[in-house]
Order: sequence, then C-alpha cells, then structure tokens
Amino acid sequence: MELTIHSLATGVDTVWVLLCAALVFFMEGGFAALEAGFIRSKNSLNIIMKVLMDCTVGMLGYFAFGFAIMYGLDKAGLIGVSGFFLKGDLSHLGLRIPVYAYWLFQAAFAIAMATIVTGAVAERMKFAPYIIFSFVATVIIYPIAGHWVWSSEGWLNKLGMLDFAGSAVVHSMGGWASLAAVWVLGPRTGKYTKSGGVNVLPGHNLPLAALGAFVLWFGWFGFNPGSTLSGLDMNIARIAVNTNLSAAAAGTTAALYTVYRFGKADPSMTINGALGGLVAITAGCAYVEPISAIIIGALAGILVVFAVPFIDGIRADDPVGAIAVHGVCGTFGTVAVGVFAENGGLLYGGGAALLGIQVLGVLAVSLWAFASTYGIFSLLKALVGIRVSVEDEIEGLDVSEHGMSAYNDMEDNPLKTLSHTPSSDLVFQSSRSADSE
Amino acid sequence: MELTIHSLATGVDTVWVLLCAALVFFMEGGFAALEAGFIRSKNSLNIIMKVLMDCTVGMLGYFAFGFAIMYGLDKAGLIGVSGFFLKGDLSHLGLRIPVYAYWLFQAAFAIAMATIVTGAVAERMKFAPYIIFSFVATVIIYPIAGHWVWSSEGWLNKLGMLDFAGSAVVHSMGGWASLAAVWVLGPRTGKYTKSGGVNVLPGHNLPLAALGAFVLWFGWFGFNPGSTLSGLDMNIARIAVNTNLSAAAAGTTAALYTVYRFGKADPSMTINGALGGLVAITAGCAYVEPISAIIIGALAGILVVFAVPFIDGIRADDPVGAIAVHGVCGTFGTVAVGVFAENGGLLYGGGAALLGIQVLGVLAVSLWAFASTYGIFSLLKALVGIRVSVEDEIEGLDVSEHGMSAYNDMEDNPLKTLSHTPSSDLVFQSSRSADSE
Amino acid sequence: MELTIHSLATGVDTVWVLLCAALVFFMEGGFAALEAGFIRSKNSLNIIMKVLMDCTVGMLGYFAFGFAIMYGLDKAGLIGVSGFFLKGDLSHLGLRIPVYAYWLFQAAFAIAMATIVTGAVAERMKFAPYIIFSFVATVIIYPIAGHWVWSSEGWLNKLGMLDFAGSAVVHSMGGWASLAAVWVLGPRTGKYTKSGGVNVLPGHNLPLAALGAFVLWFGWFGFNPGSTLSGLDMNIARIAVNTNLSAAAAGTTAALYTVYRFGKADPSMTINGALGGLVAITAGCAYVEPISAIIIGALAGILVVFAVPFIDGIRADDPVGAIAVHGVCGTFGTVAVGVFAENGGLLYGGGAALLGIQVLGVLAVSLWAFASTYGIFSLLKALVGIRVSVEDEIEGLDVSEHGMSAYNDMEDNPLKTLSHTPSSDLVFQSSRSADSE
Repeated sequence: MELTIHSLATGVDTVWVLLCAALVFFMEGGFAALEAGFIRSKNSLNIIMKVLMDCTVGMLGYFAFGFAIMYGLDKAGLIGVSGFFLKGDLSHLGLRIPVYAYWLFQAAFAIAMATIVTGAVAERMKFAPYIIFSFVATVIIYPIAGHWVWSSEGWLNKLGMLDFAGSAVVHSMGGWASLAAVWVLGPRTGKYTKSGGVNVLPGHNLPLAALGAFVLWFGWFGFNPGSTLSGLDMNIARIAVNTNLSAAAAGTTAALYTVYRFGKADPSMTINGALGGLVAITAGCAYVEPISAIIIGALAGILVVFAVPFIDGIRADDPVGAIAVHGVCGTFGTVAVGVFAENGGLLYGGGAALLGIQVLGVLAVSLWAFASTYGIFSLLKALVGIRVSVEDEIEGLDVSEHGMSAYNDMEDNPLKTLSHTPSSDLVFQSSRSADSE
Repeated sequence: MELTIHSLATGVDTVWVLLCAALVFFMEGGFAALEAGFIRSKNSLNIIMKVLMDCTVGMLGYFAFGFAIMYGLDKAGLIGVSGFFLKGDLSHLGLRIPVYAYWLFQAAFAIAMATIVTGAVAERMKFAPYIIFSFVATVIIYPIAGHWVWSSEGWLNKLGMLDFAGSAVVHSMGGWASLAAVWVLGPRTGKYTKSGGVNVLPGHNLPLAALGAFVLWFGWFGFNPGSTLSGLDMNIARIAVNTNLSAAAAGTTAALYTVYRFGKADPSMTINGALGGLVAITAGCAYVEPISAIIIGALAGILVVFAVPFIDGIRADDPVGAIAVHGVCGTFGTVAVGVFAENGGLLYGGGAALLGIQVLGVLAVSLWAFASTYGIFSLLKALVGIRVSVEDEIEGLDVSEHGMSAYNDMEDNPLKTLSHTPSSDLVFQSSRSADSE
Repeated sequence: MELTIHSLATGVDTVWVLLCAALVFFMEGGFAALEAGFIRSKNSLNIIMKVLMDCTVGMLGYFAFGFAIMYGLDKAGLIGVSGFFLKGDLSHLGLRIPVYAYWLFQAAFAIAMATIVTGAVAERMKFAPYIIFSFVATVIIYPIAGHWVWSSEGWLNKLGMLDFAGSAVVHSMGGWASLAAVWVLGPRTGKYTKSGGVNVLPGHNLPLAALGAFVLWFGWFGFNPGSTLSGLDMNIARIAVNTNLSAAAAGTTAALYTVYRFGKADPSMTINGALGGLVAITAGCAYVEPISAIIIGALAGILVVFAVPFIDGIRADDPVGAIAVHGVCGTFGTVAVGVFAENGGLLYGGGAALLGIQVLGVLAVSLWAFASTYGIFSLLKALVGIRVSVEDEIEGLDVSEHGMSAYNDMEDNPLKTLSHTPSSDLVFQSSRSADSE
C-alpha cells in the first residue's frame, strides 16, 4: 500500500477499532465469569454454555442478517435492508475503516445485548430455546432498535437522540428484555415463599464473579472509547476517563451506601454498582465533563442498591442483577445525557428538548426490547417449552442439560473413583513408570 | 525522532505488533487455565508450573538460540545460523519494525507450540524432564520447521506453502508432538482397562477451563491479525473477522453435533470445538473469504467431536484434547488453504498445485515434530525418566512434584488447623487487636 | 480534525497510551486474583473488596487531588500545587497527548501502589480504615514521592535519578509501605508461635493466584512500554523485550533455586519470582541491554526466595509476599540501574555517580513511604482501630466485614438448603414449568 497521510489515518483508525473490538469481545468472558460466579455451581456450566452460544450462534446471525437489518440501506427510518452476509454496496456508511473492522466491533456489541439476558434467565431456562432466543436477539431484536438510534437514517437518530456507546441500545435493551424473559419464565423454584418471603440463593464463587467484573471494566475501555471508530478523534481520552470515573464513583457510592443501610459493605452490590456506573456513562461518555461522569456514576451506584430489592419485590427473579445494572442504569444513563450534555443538556442551558428526546428514545427501544422478547419467549414457551422440569432444576442444569458437572474431583484419594472398576482390571502403567528413579 | 510519514508508519506497525504480542503472550494464561480446569485438581498446579516453564525457560531458549535457528541467515533452506542472542546482522529480515518487536511476537508463538504439549502429558509426566523438553522445543524442534515455512529461504516457503499464522507451524507441530509424547509416556494409570474400557477422568474446574478458552479466543485477535506485522495492511480487518467467524461456526457445529449424537450439548466438546475453529483458520485467515472461514470452522467443530474419541481409541491418552484441537484441526486447516484460497485454491480454479504443496508441507512439519519429540522423549525416558511413580500419580503431582496442593483451606472452622499447635503456644494478637471496637 | 503529520502523531501516541492504560488498569484484576488465591478462602472476598476500593475511592482521590500534588506546578522540588480536578493550566507538562490520556495512565499507576499494600495486610485488617488508607495513599503518599522523581522539577529528578516506570515510585513504595503497615497491624493470629515457630497458612486457590500472575505479566506490557507516553518512540520494542526477559529469567532462577534448596520447584516462589523480575526491571527497562535485563531478572528471582523467609523471620507477616516482591525487588531494580545503565552505569564506565543517586533516591522514596504509612496506620489504630477482633479473624473477614462467604453452595442436594423453608410454603413453579416436555 502506498504510504500517504490518508492511508496512515486509515491504519491508525483500523488498529484502534480492531483492538477495541477484541476488548469488547473479551467482555463475553467477563460476563461468563461474573454470571457463573453469582449463581449456584450446579447451573454454572449451563450459563457459560449460553454465553458461548451468543459468541457462536449469535455471532453468525449478526453476520448473516443482523448487521444488514441494523446498518443496511434504510427503509422508512425503521429497518435496514441491504448488506446481508456483508455483501453488496455499503458505501452509505461512509466509513474510513474497512467494513470488516466496523462489523467486528458492532458484532461484539450485538452479542453483549443478548448475553445480558443469560444472567437473568439463569438456573431454570432450557438450553435449546435459549439458542433460538440468542439468534432472534442478534438478528431482529437488537438490530431493529439499533437501526433507529445508530443508523444515520434511523428515526431516533434523526430526532437527535444521543446514545454514544449504547446505554440505551445495548444495556437498556438487554435489561428490559431480561425483565420480559423472567416474567414469562417465572422465578426459580424456592426463590419466593407463599408467605411473601424471598429466599437468598447465594452465588457459589464470588472471586470468579469479581474477576469477571474486572474483565468487564477492562473491556469497557474498548466499548466506549472505541465507539469513536477513530483513534484520531482526541475525544477518546476524555471518553476513557469519563468511563473510568463513573465506575469509580458508582463503586464508591454502592459500597458506602450499603454500609449506611446494612452496616456492612456488600460485595455483590459493590460489584454491580461499579458495573452500573459503567452502564450509565455509556450513553454520555462523549458528551459530558468528567465531573458530570462522577455524578452520573455516583447516582448509578445508589440506584443499583435500590433497584435490586425492588425488582425482587415485583417478583422478577433475576439471579445476577442484570435488570438493575443494565435496565435501570442504562435507562438512567440515557436520560442523564439530556441533563448533563455540554451541548443541549438541561444544566447547560439546553432546555428540555434533548431531555425529552432522550426519554422518548430510551422508552421506545426499551419497550421494543420488552415487547419483542415477551413475544418470542411466549412463543417458545408454547411451541417448545422454555423451562426445565422441577426435578431437573433441583438436580441442576449442568447435569440435566449437559450431562456433566462444573466441578469434579476424585477428592483426596483417587482410588475412591477407581474403585468403581475392579482393580485387577486396571492397566497400571508399571512398565512405563519403571523409568522413575 | 523526526516526524516523517515513514517514521509514523514504523510507529503504527510497532504499536500494532507489540500489542498483538501482548495478546499472544496472554494466551499462556489461557492455556494454563484451560488445561488446569480440564484435569484433576491434584495435578492442576503442576500443569500451571509447566506452562510457566514455557514462559520462562522456553522464552530464554528462544532468545538465545531458537530465534537464530528460525530466522538467521539460511543454510540450504533447512536452518538459520545467525542472530544468536539477537546479535549480529539481521537486515536480511527486511523489517520495518524494530527487530525486538519482531522477536517478542515470534517468541510468544514459539512458547505456544511447547505449551500445547503440556496439556497432553498432564497428570503423569515429571516436572524436570518437561523443562528440558520445553527448552528443546523452543530451541530446536519449533525453530527448524519454522525456518522451513516462514523464513524467506526455507524450502517449504520457496515451494509456495501458505501458513499465515501457524496452523501447521504452531498447531500441527504442537498437536503431533503431543501424540509422540503421550505414546512414549503411556496413558494415565486407570485410564484404560484391560477389558478395553475407557474411564472418563473428568476435569475438576470447567468454569476455569471456559475462562481459559475465552482468554485464548481473545488472544487470537493478536495471533492472526498481528501476523501481518503491519497495522497498515488493511487485510488485518478481514483476518480478524475470519478468525472470529471460524470460531463461531466451529462452536456452533460442535454444540449442535453433540446434541445430535449424544442428546445433549457437551461443554468440553463445544469449548474444544471453538478452539479447533480458531486453530483451523489460522493458516488461511489472510487468504480466504469470510464464507470460507465459516465453512472451515464448521468442519473443524465437527472434526473435534470425531477426533477426541478416535484418539482415545488408539490409546493416546490426551487429558485435554490437545491432539484433536491442535493436531487434527491444524492439519485440516493447513490443507484447507489449498481448497479455499482465493489465489490458487482448488475451488477458485487454482488446480491441485497449492493443495499438494499444503499437504506436503503440513506432513513435513508434522512428521518432524512427531519424530523429534519421539526422539527426545525416548532419550529423556532412558536417561532421567519421564514418568512419576504410580504412588506419586495417585497422590497427585502437585504434592509429589511441588510439595503443595492447589486448593487448601482451613474449612469452616479455622481452629481445626490451629489445633495442631497447643493453643497456649499461640501468639494471640490480643494487644494489637485491642484497638478493635 | 484536519489530518496533518502532527495530528497523526498525536493520534498514534494517544491510542498507545490509552490501550496501555487499560492494560495497567487490568492489573488490578490480576492483583485481586493473585492475592485472593494466596490467602485463605474466608478472607478472599475482603481482599477483593479492598482492591476494588483502590479502583474506586483511590481513583477518585487521584483525580481530585493526587494528580495535582504529583504533576501540578512545582513548589521547592517537593510538591505540586495546581491541576486539582484536572482544572487549570497544565501546559508545563509539555504533553503531546491529551492530559486526560496522561491522567488515566498515571491513575492506574497510583492505585497499583496502594493495591500492593492490600496483600500485606490481608486476613486481619478492617475494611473501613483500609478505605481511608487507600485514599491517603493515592492523594498524599504516592503523589509526593512521585513528584520528587517524575515531575520535571522534582528534586530527585533534577539530581538525575532514573526510574523509568516505577521500580522505586510504585513498587519500592508499595513494598516498604507494606512493611510499615504490617508492623503496626501485627501478624495474623496463629502465624507465629511463642516458641519461635512459624505456621504456614497456605493459600486457598493457587490456580486463581497463578491466573492473576498471568494477568499481571500481561498488564506489564502496558506498564513499562507505555511509560514512553509515545508509540513513536522506537525504544518501546526493547522495553517490552527487556520486561519479558527479566520475568523469564526470574521465573527460571526462582524455580531452579527452589529445586536446589528444597528439592522441589515451589509454585508460590516461582510465581513471586517471575513477578519480582517484572518489578526489578521496571526502573531500568528503557536504559539497559537485554542481556542486562536477564541478569537483573535472574538475581531478582533468587532474591525473592531469600527475602520471603527473611521477612517472615523478622516477624513481618505478609501473607502474599508483597514486601519481598515489590519492596526488595523494587529497591534492587532501582539500584541496578546504576550498575547496568548503558548511559552512566558502573559497568559502562559511568563511575559511581549514577549508582549513588539511585541508592539515595530509592532510600528517600522508600523511607517516605515507610514513615508516612507508619504514621497513618498508627493514627488510624489510635482513632478508629485497624484490626478486627480475634473472633472475627477466626470466623473470617468475609463474614465479619461483609456478611457473606466467597464460596457458597447448596452442595449435592439443593433441597438441603430449601429444607430450611417448610416445603408447603414454597412456590413450586408448577404452572410455569408445565411447559417442559
């Protein structure tokens, strides 16, 4: 390639977007660890498999159809209709980077929206219908609302809605889709008592969950700054700082508020609080000052602590807090842009116009996500069933759906397991081990 | 440094290669987690230590000798003979980036080839001879075949063999070296019964293994696109997409095929299937269309499900599936370039010439890896012994080779452990803890 | 933005620094995993929460005050006094990149220094006073000494002290602050016996610790090369190689030396040895030849094996080896610059001048870290108490400080937990689960 100032610019932007896409993809590993750690061990392999299905089936769906519906040539501001399998003319996107780089970055976002739902439906949803949902989510649910907001011809985009990296498009959608899913699916057996009590079913491996949260925070350094699609847009630095400060403020307020309310700093709430701060700043990270990012994060951290028990109270059984973190904080963060945006925000003399558009926009995409998920879950329930039997639920989905356990061992004495086989029948590798001194 | 368009180009390429090298290095952590999770807890620390030895002893070996043998001035197309300790004239490499950046990227590849073997020999190979093997692998085995394919004067390179990022050089080599190693080493005690049965010895921590697989997938975004050695080569975007789509397709077919064959989606097979898709596309990622990457991946996912029991059937006891994932899919992926390459592939009117060269090339490097590993393992067996005693194997290699267990705890009541010490003898930190409220 | 050769250069540098900052931030996840794995399970959640407090409270402190004290306009070579909340004129920094990018990179360093201390005070320090310490560390302790060395007007900088990426500023400080902290805090109950014995309290999850070490090594590819603040400085390649080779040599010598001394390769020592190699090369990575990096690392690996029991011997109870890894190797690495620096080192004909300055510099910052930490810990001990009660320590800090356990499960039969609730009172989701086949 001939070296010119323009080819260099394309190179810098492509390197930036590809590395950010890798970071966003790695968030799937973070989700898998977070969610597996927050639930009981007997279902942890099943949730990891569901996340893997987003990365595999969902990714293929977004390649074949989803991307075209989201970013293809527009019909009526509602849907895209070209670019299936990345074929055909995509010049309307006006990209400086290769369309492949753009697709990869977008694909990692699409599967993130689906993955949010895996956490909410954990511990009782069948595996096969989840695969179908994952496909529908990345092919229809996410791309259609994504088109509204992020396609240049989408109706919400044209209204002026600001959702820089997806507080609404990815997180509100994922969160409210989760609410629909758990309402159709029903709570876990034993979660709620007839007398109105709520049983706590604690996560089995909180260090694993925390490690997942660190991976997610790390990945967010690709998620938000990468959404510039250019490493030459110097706003990437402020976006990264805003992202980080919002998470820091949210983790701080969540921890301190749980001390105030419960007397002790709650690890689950602190982790989910920090994640809530990341979710909330995702819409506004490119539009607000760092001090606003701190305020948005601080409020998100407290919101999570309120929202988790509230959602439990409306009998929406969400084992990992996905609705509180992604739905509540995603919606809040989208609306907050209308208040804090330097250009058009209420506090910056912009009046209520932007605020109104933000409220309208997040309501529209959230309702779409809720309604479409409610529909597909109801349909799947009627056609193939979405819930494992009570017996399978008690046994755990790892064994019932996948035939194995997440954790196995021969314990202290391996002969305990070997003793199932008559010992005379074993091939002891005596000749081979004779080479040991 | 003076700013010119050329110094900028060098800068972009160096940033790209260094960050990709870091991603490839991180794959060692992925291998460690994957392999430790797939085996029994009593041997999990030992396998992590072996991976660490690749990162330490193997890395030093590749610095001192391996790189020179692989990329030094050529002798007869067979071996490099200059550049030991990165000293001397390396201008024949024609690099735009600093040779240090090039070395780091290559070194992360070299140790990956050795690390593949750690998984296959898990749970019964002694630690000390493994260190020797790791050194020999990074100093002789890998660099020699690497020279054939990737040095501009190597005989397979001159024939026109295409192995963009190492389906043959890294993965086939690692996989078939593994087969030689386990044949010399023998199966684990209790794995096979005299009556022909095969005992399943399940992995102890599948969430850890899955997290390792996500790290590997993440690292592959450096492994394949980074092999351009330039961030200004716009093919990096398609390479990343092909890598991702192949893994997605492979995970999909592995999961669905296990549903078809066993009635349930198998987590181990799905994880190994996705990894098989990554391995298979590694040779062709720069040469094929995305749709071909999907086909290659889809076939690799099914291949893994066939290959794992087949390899068990020939009594090659490979606890983590390294031979199936790296040997079988690496060989398949190398050959597939001869079919799917846009330039020279059978399906693109290129005839059988490239296909023949690919078959010849992958056979050559695989045979070399198999034979040289068989030799060094036989030699080590005769000289120092390679296998722990049956007693040590039953106790576990963590204790017998390293004197400690991977998992320890004082259980619910820590006084159980403390009770080994007469309590009057304990220094209760009463004065110091008096500051507690 | 208009495309010029200068805007491109700024773009490359900003992309580089932001991605390196993300890598350095991810090290917090590495620290959390490493430390949690190296201690007992009953305190593992508490240590993760403390690391999270560095990422949240500490990060906010460095934003509001710490950065200004470190990099604001100089007073007397001792302290910075402008730039609070990143406001005001920061042009004296002479940055090509946005100040936001610079801040993010520096912030990730600041919290690393605090996080080192979390490991040393593990298993007995209260949560609330740790938060206060984390704030003080990132606002006062770290920034003041950081100003001395890294601000252009700092007195140690003006003397010519060389500490490229912080063997002294981050690691020595963190290590010797740890020593002060554990001396004020006292050892864990049951660690030392009246008769002079030392009880080993083994870590509960060494695979988790090892995974943390891999994350740290990975993050160091941002920590050291990123400290150029420019992707166009071609020294980044050698810095990355030196970093890697030092770690490789250190892991090698630590493993081999434990074989020599104890008869078996010790996993904890090998992991800490490799980390010690990373710490030791951090000061000199930009100034020494690769062969010197190997020597520095090789010595650091052995130093760790000597230092860990020595520190135990002086009754400084450091559960994770933070003082040995960060204090001892950080000090050694800073001094080693005076010996190995190509420009001014003793072995390169530079005489003893640089060596003297390095000794003086590392003594100054280490003493400052020790004294200020001793002061704040003593004050906290007097005012609010820093140590949990013996009862809480025996129960574990996860329950006593946070009200939950790191690991929970309903074991094999989930009804064991459910049986706490009268079964007639449970809402079995019979209607909802009726859709199961």
